[in-house]
Amino acid sequence: MHIRKQRLLTPGPTPLYPPALHAMMASDIHHRTEDFRNAYRSCLADLKEVMGTSHDVLMFAASGTGAMDATVSNLFSRGDKVIVCSAGKFGERWVEIAKAYGLEANVLSAPYGEVVTPERVEAALAAEPATKGVFVQASETSTGAAHHVEAMARAVAKTNAIFAVDAITGLGTMPLDIDGWGLDVTIGGSQKAFMIPPGLAFMAISPKAWKLADSATLPHYYFNLKKEKKSGDAGESSWTPATALILALAEALRYVKQVGMPKLIENAQLLAEATRAAVTALELQLFAPASPGSSVTAVRAPAGMDSSVIVKEFRNRFGAIIANGQGSMKGQIFRIAHLGYFDFADLFAVIAGLEIILNANGHPVQYGTGVAAAQQVYARAAVKPQTVTA
Amino acid sequence: MHIRKQRLLTPGPTPLYPPALHAMMASDIHHRTEDFRNAYRSCLADLKEVMGTSHDVLMFAASGTGAMDATVSNLFSRGDKVIVCSAGKFGERWVEIAKAYGLEANVLSAPYGEVVTPERVEAALAAEPATKGVFVQASETSTGAAHHVEAMARAVAKTNAIFAVDAITGLGTMPLDIDGWGLDVTIGGSQKAFMIPPGLAFMAISPKAWKLADSATLPHYYFNLKKEKKSGDAGESSWTPATALILALAEALRYVKQVGMPKLIENAQLLAEATRAAVTALELQLFAPASPGSSVTAVRAPAGMDSSVIVKEFRNRFGAIIANGQGSMKGQIFRIAHLGYFDFADLFAVIAGLEIILNANGHPVQYGTGVAAAQQVYARAAVKPQTVTA
Repeated sequence: MHIRKQRLLTPGPTPLYPPALHAMMASDIHHRTEDFRNAYRSCLADLKEVMGTSHDVLMFAASGTGAMDATVSNLFSRGDKVIVCSAGKFGERWVEIAKAYGLEANVLSAPYGEVVTPERVEAALAAEPATKGVFVQASETSTGAAHHVEAMARAVAKTNAIFAVDAITGLGTMPLDIDGWGLDVTIGGSQKAFMIPPGLAFMAISPKAWKLADSATLPHYYFNLKKEKKSGDAGESSWTPATALILALAEALRYVKQVGMPKLIENAQLLAEATRAAVTALELQLFAPASPGSSVTAVRAPAGMDSSVIVKEFRNRFGAIIANGQGSMKGQIFRIAHLGYFDFADLFAVIAGLEIILNANGHPVQYGTGVAAAQQVYARAAVKPQTVTA
Repeated sequence: MHIRKQRLLTPGPTPLYPPALHAMMASDIHHRTEDFRNAYRSCLADLKEVMGTSHDVLMFAASGTGAMDATVSNLFSRGDKVIVCSAGKFGERWVEIAKAYGLEANVLSAPYGEVVTPERVEAALAAEPATKGVFVQASETSTGAAHHVEAMARAVAKTNAIFAVDAITGLGTMPLDIDGWGLDVTIGGSQKAFMIPPGLAFMAISPKAWKLADSATLPHYYFNLKKEKKSGDAGESSWTPATALILALAEALRYVKQVGMPKLIENAQLLAEATRAAVTALELQLFAPASPGSSVTAVRAPAGMDSSVIVKEFRNRFGAIIANGQGSMKGQIFRIAHLGYFDFADLFAVIAGLEIILNANGHPVQYGTGVAAAQQVYARAAVKPQTVTA
């Protein structure tokens, strides 16, 4: 067979930063030693720095859903009134978690591909002053749409409710002024813009959220924010940490700091812009044209074509794993990711491959049309190479 | 400086099986692909095989404590009566979890270094027929003592209660006939006899335990046994799995199967026996002489000597990380581990190092005394090398 390099081009797990991957080889380390405490402390400090917050940051050995669970089980009580913005699969996950813990949730839904407006949140808060929390996705990974986090945050900040933001694919792809706007819980995951494999969840927690924790009564044990805060202050985790991933994270965060969070975000934004330009030039339709985020761009398959064919063709022809739609969107859309360790060379290859796949499957396009549109974005932005020393 | 190889010789994280460690380098893999499903399915099937059970086996992206939490939050209801056997730090963790979830716990305590007898469990069950569960550690890692799991299981099996066993350091170090004896929940962790870094928890769940899940009412979300079972049957995890660790586990389980679980257990048992012989020859005292387990041997520091000195000396002189006592035992005992990827060469070096450290710190022993005692155990057992192909 011809050479086909395996390329992971999905919005999580994302492409891995090689030195971070290699750092896992040193994981014959014990978690109750000063060497490891240094790595753990450096991760917590660097996370604070790249997230741009003075809030406490905690880590858990879990996937991002674990931090979503921790938010509800640590900060709320059965019967608490909350508002959930649901505009896709991960919004539905907030709804499920709220339900599992017996919260009384006012669900503000938007169809897949659209978003919940800040005005709806403001109106819902006004209608129920007893609301204790508002849940949202900064970037809804299942559709590629991004919520207007700043405006929502400002609306929530005026009330007693806390604003809990699943920023799992938002961090590193959009500006999020956690302290300035008033994000009370900000959730991240290792396998996203942080460029390492899945298995770690992060949370930034505001003083307002900590205050809510004091009166919360839902039971929890593994996810215990207060205990984890105390452990973190001592450079440790409460339970045995995922040492290999912590070592990888320490290395990846070094790189993210070197690139700089604003540049990392700009990188995702430019790739997203170039992707939109490319698929538009190929006369494909964007799935979330009104509120496109920069973590991932969802594109509708051409009429009469199952998007699964595109996903399969990418794998078979190019060894590239791109994302299908999730849930009810499966077969309708495919998703091109931009978050983290992605560059223009990746994107040029994806668009060129897409052109070949469209042609091979009865949807003729002129070779190079999409690529040229992406190149224009590159040229206009005059993206400079990152000078990085290993 | 002289060469000092770093050696991780603690009862978790334990020494890592190199090919498993290296397998993590291939973690640019997506968790919703057939390639990954194959790895996930193979892990679940191999776990069942090496644990020797026909029960359902589930995995979580979490440390072992996560599976302990899952046991309580998925199988019980607030106010349920349970019996907790507590003979060390991890017994205390069961107590904490039961308390966090509002169970009514009858705590059967034993001093650190001793165990809770099956007779006490039987009596407590007889005294409270409404008991819904009995919690225990197969091997109490903090003290090195092992509970008499078989006798306890037989007592619990006669009742309506389920028997939940934290076998995190029990698996691979002692025989555990999950189906035959009636272990309803059996918990394991990746960083123990499974020879890979921490971050994965396993659980085997009996039909009797599943039945209890049907009537349980405690809230939970991230740890959802029923959902995870359904996902596992489809070769997936409910939430994004810790892909790197799954790839490592698949490789390590291949090795464990090749060695054979009985041989792996015998390996730990022989190392434990040799350790006891060595430290006894050095006139040190065992911490759990009556019920010594084979996952780790806890040894009292000589009179007038802080065990922290021994731990520190091992690190400074030999680059070896051995375990101190935990909690109130810190400074009083040190612990030599045997579980998983440990061999006699490791042990000879530890005992020789211990002899040097004792002499250097005012506790004269004759060089070679402890080593010779360990060698005798080796010679008598005529341990044959494992023939292993990479």
